[in-house]
Amino acid sequence: MWSVRILTLFPELFPGPLASSITGRALKEAIWEIKAIDVRDYATDKHKTVDDCPYGGGGGMVARPDILGQAIEENFISNQNEIIYLSPRGELFNQGLARELTQRKGINIICGRFEGIDERVINEYRIREVSIGDFVLSSGDVAAYSLLDACVRLLPGVLGNGGSLVQESFGLDHNYEMLLEYPHFTRPQNWRDRQVPEVLLSGNHQLVENWRLEQAKQKTKEQRPDLWNRYLSRKEK
Amino acid sequence: MWSVRILTLFPELFPGPLASSITGRALKEAIWEIKAIDVRDYATDKHKTVDDCPYGGGGGMVARPDILGQAIEENFISNQNEIIYLSPRGELFNQGLARELTQRKGINIICGRFEGIDERVINEYRIREVSIGDFVLSSGDVAAYSLLDACVRLLPGVLGNGGSLVQESFGLDHNYEMLLEYPHFTRPQNWRDRQVPEVLLSGNHQLVENWRLEQAKQKTKEQRPDLWNRYLSRKEK
Repeated sequence: MWSVRILTLFPELFPGPLASSITGRALKEAIWEIKAIDVRDYATDKHKTVDDCPYGGGGGMVARPDILGQAIEENFISNQNEIIYLSPRGELFNQGLARELTQRKGINIICGRFEGIDERVINEYRIREVSIGDFVLSSGDVAAYSLLDACVRLLPGVLGNGGSLVQESFGLDHNYEMLLEYPHFTRPQNWRDRQVPEVLLSGNHQLVENWRLEQAKQKTKEQRPDLWNRYLSRKEK
Repeated sequence: MWSVRILTLFPELFPGPLASSITGRALKEAIWEIKAIDVRDYATDKHKTVDDCPYGGGGGMVARPDILGQAIEENFISNQNEIIYLSPRGELFNQGLARELTQRKGINIICGRFEGIDERVINEYRIREVSIGDFVLSSGDVAAYSLLDACVRLLPGVLGNGGSLVQESFGLDHNYEMLLEYPHFTRPQNWRDRQVPEVLLSGNHQLVENWRLEQAKQKTKEQRPDLWNRYLSRKEK
């Protein structure tokens, strides 16, 4: 069972939408589990304060190292899983990192909902900073949904059809690992005078494969030159 | 009022976690609104089928163009807002795109929870494909949380302290636009023999600013060479 512990100011947000659909079914089947812990339970004053003004001035509040540290000690250290802090300062989350995280026995997550957390906490516990993208969220909780959803669907037994993990965007098929997905078509065959491409009706598996790979390359080249360059440099090796 | 319409198979997931905290307060204050529409309401058979097998074979199901098209016509066309389809094939969502979207009167979103949607729908309605990152989610619904959270916090009146938008990661301050955020420190001043950097206690505003900018540069250089290169090339202009 893949085990997730999450430190947050809003424990009621979990599992939240992750209790629905594919991730929800996997939760019921005990393929993974999640325990949300309220950082405020570690506050020491009657107002349950967990943050304070930043040294050096400026807007926003910063999570106190002593309180956050206590919450980490009591909830994360014993399970020995890596501690991830979701923050736009982190390394970019991607499909490769999702695969890496699902090969462990679980993860510990800290969700900020402050200006930030005290830097000393990051150093003290060798916390790994991970970002889901170059945008700023009002909280790490929303980022955690994406990280967890991307991970859980990769856990063994979660997706009925293992095949769909192979050719999807950033799929396991070597040809598709750096490519965006090819276009999809379904019935009706003629819709508003738009036809399904002939090749997909040919019944020739090899022609279909060639066409899809070519389309995936075209799409990647146009939409994401950065990925396309990585695809090319990989091919050359 | 910034108006969001969202086509999904799980309308009960909205506003969901977006009804909490900052985005939730903004929702109550009618700074934005969201209407989730169930794609299944446009199915034409008694089983409420909205997808079918892909032409050309392969795993997964594809949303039918006729049914999705009808849902789009009835819910999106009249408001004239751009239609965004959340998919790993899209252009990468970032803070700049979040700012762009919040300058409109609203957006229309399609959340997939299939292998994909029929390509003809994307062409017919000039749908903009947007990806929140190089990873695959079990549904666009989870991606929508991130996109909407990043946008809503930028709407006028949502964040009390306008200053916190300026120096954050990818902030509006020209110096910080391509940089990750500097480290934060708060009380206690001494924690586990780890001290707050002297300069932050100096009370010298200019020294603090210089130190923070330098730290932001260092962090960006180490963690995200891609951003650092964009920062440098921008400086040269």
